[in-house]
Amino acid sequence: MTDKNLGSRRRFLKGGAALGLTTAVVPAVRSQESSDGLSRSAYGVRSRYVTSKRIGDGGNNSDFESEYNTLSPIQNQVGIITPSALHFNSSHGASPPDIDPHEHELMIHGLVDRPLKFTMAELQRLPFISRIHFIECSANYPLPKDVTVQHTHGKTSCSEWTGVPLSLILNEAGVRSGAKWIVAEGADRDSHSKSIPLQRALDSCFVAYGQNGGPLRPHQGYPLRLMVPGAGGFSHVKWLRRIKVVDKPYLTPSERFNELHGPKSVITFPSGGQQLLERGYYTISGLAWSGAGRIQSVEVSTDGGRKWQPASINGPVLPVAHTRFSLAWNWNGKETTIMSRCTDDVGQVQPTAIEFARSRGVSVDKVLSREVRRQGHWNLVFPWKIASDGQVQHHYWV
Amino acid sequence: MTDKNLGSRRRFLKGGAALGLTTAVVPAVRSQESSDGLSRSAYGVRSRYVTSKRIGDGGNNSDFESEYNTLSPIQNQVGIITPSALHFNSSHGASPPDIDPHEHELMIHGLVDRPLKFTMAELQRLPFISRIHFIECSANYPLPKDVTVQHTHGKTSCSEWTGVPLSLILNEAGVRSGAKWIVAEGADRDSHSKSIPLQRALDSCFVAYGQNGGPLRPHQGYPLRLMVPGAGGFSHVKWLRRIKVVDKPYLTPSERFNELHGPKSVITFPSGGQQLLERGYYTISGLAWSGAGRIQSVEVSTDGGRKWQPASINGPVLPVAHTRFSLAWNWNGKETTIMSRCTDDVGQVQPTAIEFARSRGVSVDKVLSREVRRQGHWNLVFPWKIASDGQVQHHYWV
Repeated sequence: MTDKNLGSRRRFLKGGAALGLTTAVVPAVRSQESSDGLSRSAYGVRSRYVTSKRIGDGGNNSDFESEYNTLSPIQNQVGIITPSALHFNSSHGASPPDIDPHEHELMIHGLVDRPLKFTMAELQRLPFISRIHFIECSANYPLPKDVTVQHTHGKTSCSEWTGVPLSLILNEAGVRSGAKWIVAEGADRDSHSKSIPLQRALDSCFVAYGQNGGPLRPHQGYPLRLMVPGAGGFSHVKWLRRIKVVDKPYLTPSERFNELHGPKSVITFPSGGQQLLERGYYTISGLAWSGAGRIQSVEVSTDGGRKWQPASINGPVLPVAHTRFSLAWNWNGKETTIMSRCTDDVGQVQPTAIEFARSRGVSVDKVLSREVRRQGHWNLVFPWKIASDGQVQHHYWV
Repeated sequence: MTDKNLGSRRRFLKGGAALGLTTAVVPAVRSQESSDGLSRSAYGVRSRYVTSKRIGDGGNNSDFESEYNTLSPIQNQVGIITPSALHFNSSHGASPPDIDPHEHELMIHGLVDRPLKFTMAELQRLPFISRIHFIECSANYPLPKDVTVQHTHGKTSCSEWTGVPLSLILNEAGVRSGAKWIVAEGADRDSHSKSIPLQRALDSCFVAYGQNGGPLRPHQGYPLRLMVPGAGGFSHVKWLRRIKVVDKPYLTPSERFNELHGPKSVITFPSGGQQLLERGYYTISGLAWSGAGRIQSVEVSTDGGRKWQPASINGPVLPVAHTRFSLAWNWNGKETTIMSRCTDDVGQVQPTAIEFARSRGVSVDKVLSREVRRQGHWNLVFPWKIASDGQVQHHYWV
């Protein structure tokens, strides 16, 4: 950015738009305590002016219907880490199970020489790793009714996860010849289960007890979840209690979804439901991620996809992690469409709708159809239309 | 680690020690709401079995006296990120100021061509960076009365911070010739101020509005703080409202402490106040950091400093960030002393007490004296003594 640009920006900044700050109803009095009775000195709370929250995927901000899907407010997030309290949730049952960690055990059985049980204390004595990884629900796709990026892309979050490599545990149990898969089972009401190829389990999976420096949150599987870096959210079995080593994929409801998520990105500012109040300088910002590895580059178009400019990367670039990008932009006040696309370090490029439709042999108006959505991870380039009055709306296909 | 080691470990694991899990009083009923009236679906809370908290540096778990110093429970933390609610705090005044972000402004003045004021909304429109950095209070040293690593080393924390490079803001204001320093001032009761060399301000400082994906917490300076990566905590002026560009360091109480923190590490498990219940396998774990750059290597001694073994690095290695290390260890049940030392990527090695005393020309029993502590950052190798009954105590100088 040149000084000339900055000079022009400053003129518009004088206008004092309140973008990026929610003008929300602020509680006049705020509890001096956090929710477990600790003082704010013992366990800190947010400022009373900070009000961002998860919403249900019905799009109603106050009614969650069920807790199947709660969406992370990625339009308000900065950096790459998702605050633990705002991590998206997609699980069965109205509430997370209330598990006493002193009672919880992980069982390893099936095609192993030595079936094993681990208490949480035993697991926490073992060698561990700590990795910053996104988890994205495979059903993280937009619907026509969606308004904000929280609706269209809010089923992805990124945390530092800490736990024990599954290879260590499986080697300790002694995997028998003929074993090809594992089945992981959670302690939730429905005993959610998922089959994972054994080779992936040995290569990259771990059983995580830590999230962003603390224990897992209840909605994220406290006290233990499976991490399957880069795979769909439902592979990351929460409240993990059992791993069975087997010779073929069990008929779990989801045994077919085992591909790693492809490269994906979205602009979080400006995004749906926001409004640019004036022409002038803005920093376009967004998130990019890939289940296959690191993000190598991100490009942004501010003219509906005719020209693509390289975006800046603004923070850590880690494997299978959210990556923050941005682009300095002077908006001329005219209607336009903005979008981002990313490339990962194995060379995969996020497809546009037209490219995606061509590769699947469907017409471009079908890229959001139920059949296409159910084929797996939906990672298309996602455009936002900015009207001449600054209103931002989803604008599916350019 | 060999399979033989693992076999031997498993035998001891059968004993079922409850290390690492706090046997705490668990509230029978827990609020369904977080502290600001949101449901747990909208804003998640910890499991009711998770009770770790900050304590005052008087060592009394329930009485904070003042909020000058609240210590982070690093004995319970995993990975490198400190949960925002548990970030250490060291500041003036009994409570953080309650700042309305719509009213807050940052003023840039002094030796500049164009004095500037920025609202928070204006700052959030500017180009930004996001960095995972530790902040450590320069007074993070042990005292003889201290028991746990929370007391001895709890004034350090690590977060992802997001904000605007100060160079961008200063260039926009136009720094005049003759300028050599900046003075940053906070909006707290005492208007805490700190002088920073201008060159450092231009090279690495930024004004941060984001912490771990959300806005700063009130105790960490909401809505804005100065980041001075690698310098002492009190340089990172909280509730930042004013930056004056000047020709010499103002006589702020702390203008002399401008050196970057040296390499430092500490073992967090096993650590003071904990007890190993049996002989056998443990994963020694700890944190290392340096104000000068990345941690290059960590070594651990389990025999009082005679032999040093290379530790594993268990997670991301980032500049000026906490770095997690560990060492697989079979404890033979005999009294011993364990400690860690680290080397950073500019070649600095964390000193032992003897090396430190020699370099300062004092006797080794003086390395914790008030005069030595006040000379700057205290980063000595810190030993823990493990008694034959497994009790862990501080054990200053080997």
